[in-house]
Amino acid sequence: MSQKPSLPKGTRDFTPKVVFQRNYIIQTIQKVFQKYGFDPIETPALENLSVLTGKYGDEGDQLLFKVLNSGDFLNKTAPEDYAAGSAHLTGKISEKGLRYDLTVPFARFVAMNRNEINFPFKRYQIQPVWRADRPQKGRYREFYQCDADVVGTHSLLCEAELIAMAQEVYDGLSFRDYQVSLSNRKILEGIALACGASDQFNAFCVTLDKIDKIGRERVFEELIKIGLKESDLQTLSDILHIEGDHHDKLNQLRPFVMDSTQGKVGIEEVENTLNYLKSLDVSTEKIVLDFTLARGLTYYTGIIYEIKPTTLQMGTITAGGRYDNLTGVFGLPDVSGVGISFGIDRIYDTLNELNLFPKQLKVENHVLITNFDATTENHALHVLSVLRNEGITAELYPEAAKLKKQLSFAHRKNIPYVLMVGTEEMKSKEYSLKHMETGEQQRLSVDQLVKLLLAMN
Amino acid sequence: MSQKPSLPKGTRDFTPKVVFQRNYIIQTIQKVFQKYGFDPIETPALENLSVLTGKYGDEGDQLLFKVLNSGDFLNKTAPEDYAAGSAHLTGKISEKGLRYDLTVPFARFVAMNRNEINFPFKRYQIQPVWRADRPQKGRYREFYQCDADVVGTHSLLCEAELIAMAQEVYDGLSFRDYQVSLSNRKILEGIALACGASDQFNAFCVTLDKIDKIGRERVFEELIKIGLKESDLQTLSDILHIEGDHHDKLNQLRPFVMDSTQGKVGIEEVENTLNYLKSLDVSTEKIVLDFTLARGLTYYTGIIYEIKPTTLQMGTITAGGRYDNLTGVFGLPDVSGVGISFGIDRIYDTLNELNLFPKQLKVENHVLITNFDATTENHALHVLSVLRNEGITAELYPEAAKLKKQLSFAHRKNIPYVLMVGTEEMKSKEYSLKHMETGEQQRLSVDQLVKLLLAMN
Repeated sequence: MSQKPSLPKGTRDFTPKVVFQRNYIIQTIQKVFQKYGFDPIETPALENLSVLTGKYGDEGDQLLFKVLNSGDFLNKTAPEDYAAGSAHLTGKISEKGLRYDLTVPFARFVAMNRNEINFPFKRYQIQPVWRADRPQKGRYREFYQCDADVVGTHSLLCEAELIAMAQEVYDGLSFRDYQVSLSNRKILEGIALACGASDQFNAFCVTLDKIDKIGRERVFEELIKIGLKESDLQTLSDILHIEGDHHDKLNQLRPFVMDSTQGKVGIEEVENTLNYLKSLDVSTEKIVLDFTLARGLTYYTGIIYEIKPTTLQMGTITAGGRYDNLTGVFGLPDVSGVGISFGIDRIYDTLNELNLFPKQLKVENHVLITNFDATTENHALHVLSVLRNEGITAELYPEAAKLKKQLSFAHRKNIPYVLMVGTEEMKSKEYSLKHMETGEQQRLSVDQLVKLLLAMN
Repeated sequence: MSQKPSLPKGTRDFTPKVVFQRNYIIQTIQKVFQKYGFDPIETPALENLSVLTGKYGDEGDQLLFKVLNSGDFLNKTAPEDYAAGSAHLTGKISEKGLRYDLTVPFARFVAMNRNEINFPFKRYQIQPVWRADRPQKGRYREFYQCDADVVGTHSLLCEAELIAMAQEVYDGLSFRDYQVSLSNRKILEGIALACGASDQFNAFCVTLDKIDKIGRERVFEELIKIGLKESDLQTLSDILHIEGDHHDKLNQLRPFVMDSTQGKVGIEEVENTLNYLKSLDVSTEKIVLDFTLARGLTYYTGIIYEIKPTTLQMGTITAGGRYDNLTGVFGLPDVSGVGISFGIDRIYDTLNELNLFPKQLKVENHVLITNFDATTENHALHVLSVLRNEGITAELYPEAAKLKKQLSFAHRKNIPYVLMVGTEEMKSKEYSLKHMETGEQQRLSVDQLVKLLLAMN
């Protein structure tokens, strides 16, 4: 009895072509992480629900994938538990859930391994996460996150390095049409104070954050609804009109937040981050100070930044910020950290749309050897073993077949070279090497072949 | 409110040191896979239970981790469903499960992507799997599998290449104390016929497979219980006493299975596999023909092999075989395949016990630059940017601290070099580079430093 197989909604298979492209992105990021001294860790996909629940807000709790206890999972339940409904029953039949992000597991990791960890701890982590979100274009239920964080120091050098790393990653991917929006959560507090909105700080920020989407006018209407006065809106309008280079902008902002200790610290932190970048000889050209930036309000406490493509409608492809109390909930207070997260799927879509993936992501000197019959096969096996002993990626077509079929196989597999081993070649010990892209063919002895292919990689 | 965090039973965190060691194993395997022309695929961790259930036997079904449907998962159930018990209710509240191995998802992948796949398809896949097994030493609920398979050809070249790959992997890991046991499922059929056990083929094999554990005598007692006669046991005993080199062994076995077409084909397939290895110039020294080998009875149909360390009590670290009907259950008949699977955790334990991990798994020229105060920090940042621009892995200690603390940090992080940048060095522009392992120190200009470090990698 056979069945028609299917995939769960929001999940994907990756074919070799896509894996090579995704690995190109991941390895580029990984190389930069390592170059800056970040070390990898891994945490399990399965976490106890006690670790995950309550960390992502009510909506996040809804979106956690929960795993049924194994065995007779009903044995600790009673009909009343069933009658009490899904939410109640979950607590009785499920103890584990799937990783929802990499931050909470990292916080748990730090709390549990505090005695072994070498602080300041620079870690990176590249693993899948799961969210029971409604699947839609570009949003999946299983997707990779790619994070780097430094915990255990307040140094703004970390903020500067994370931004430098992002720029180095995009350089490595030959992608340059992006903007880095930079601000500080503390500046928002200063602005809220200046606009008489300190009491409704969250509502103020959430509304302000919508400027790009709904426009300034409608944002101002909403702000009046939450209690801002005309004079507050005038102040806000003045702040929004600040223009100039980074230095100018910060100088113009300063008088607006002079009554806010937090606001002044925020400006100083942005300034110091920019100074670190300068000392590191890293360009700040792509950085735009955006004082209305309000991402991650519930956890970020200092510098915040996000990166978006400028020539594509794509949303944020990289973002991060500083949080002052990562591990407090797990019993380890006063651990400050700052992080960055790369969105692999959106970066993939960006490179794809802009045609920025290199054509050949496999090795350049991969060879397919033809197989016509038992006699030539046996000869071809010797050639194959010579190539492999030299470390060259080579394979023999596993059964006798027509040349056309084998060439088509090589073409579809994106193998750049085909080596013809027929009766004539066997005798002359000179083999025809066909370059698949150009169609060019040359006759070579095994020694010449090895030399040519080794020179290529 | 803080909580004491914990990990689910049978799951693990991996610290940087362990990740580097595991990646050393995985990358060694991956490099060999790619060198032999295998391409990577990835499948989701979440699979529909309709795909997973019934593929691993009753015990396997029990060990599947099942994921609760999201939202109000009880809304399609009635109190009777609750009353009917866990097994029944599962079907109503859970549609998805976690990947249990890589073979079934691969079969699903092949069936679903049959039109895009370039057959013969050589794929590898390295991903975690989950089993609700009782955790014990060396057995986890979440662990990695590392598989390579060729589907769409009957060529025994594939079998030979998989064995060659395994040997190349262990060469790459500098591990050489292992044995490759090789046989063919069809030979077992021939032996069963010779011993009058064809009717109880499965029981016969399962019993025979216990020889290593319980000894020949007890196995014979059990075989009598399932109906073998004294003369059958004599035949079996004669077969078990076959000795000599590969050629001798096969020649001595041949008369015993002359009445079995399958048995004769099995012998021929083993012979051809060995011949392919010889033509590939691959040593067959570590290969032992073991006609009682009975692994994977329910799915393997041809060549079977397994690799075990010879100097450690470790069990199988690599195994595989040919199966003739991988994708039939998913509506794609007649796809023959052959595969290999590496057990990362056991390989890890093996290398660990034998002290075979290289000491330095990070780059050799990683430098930590000291940070003593704001002035030297600013100078150090320039040195840092020069090193990084040359592609050298370098980091600045992120805040001012005592030298001792910074050296200890470098030591614990396994950073091989520390570059001292103090007031004096700032003036002379000659910096002291300390080699952490030897304690040696040398004074160098930035140019000399770059040259030295670049020459190292």
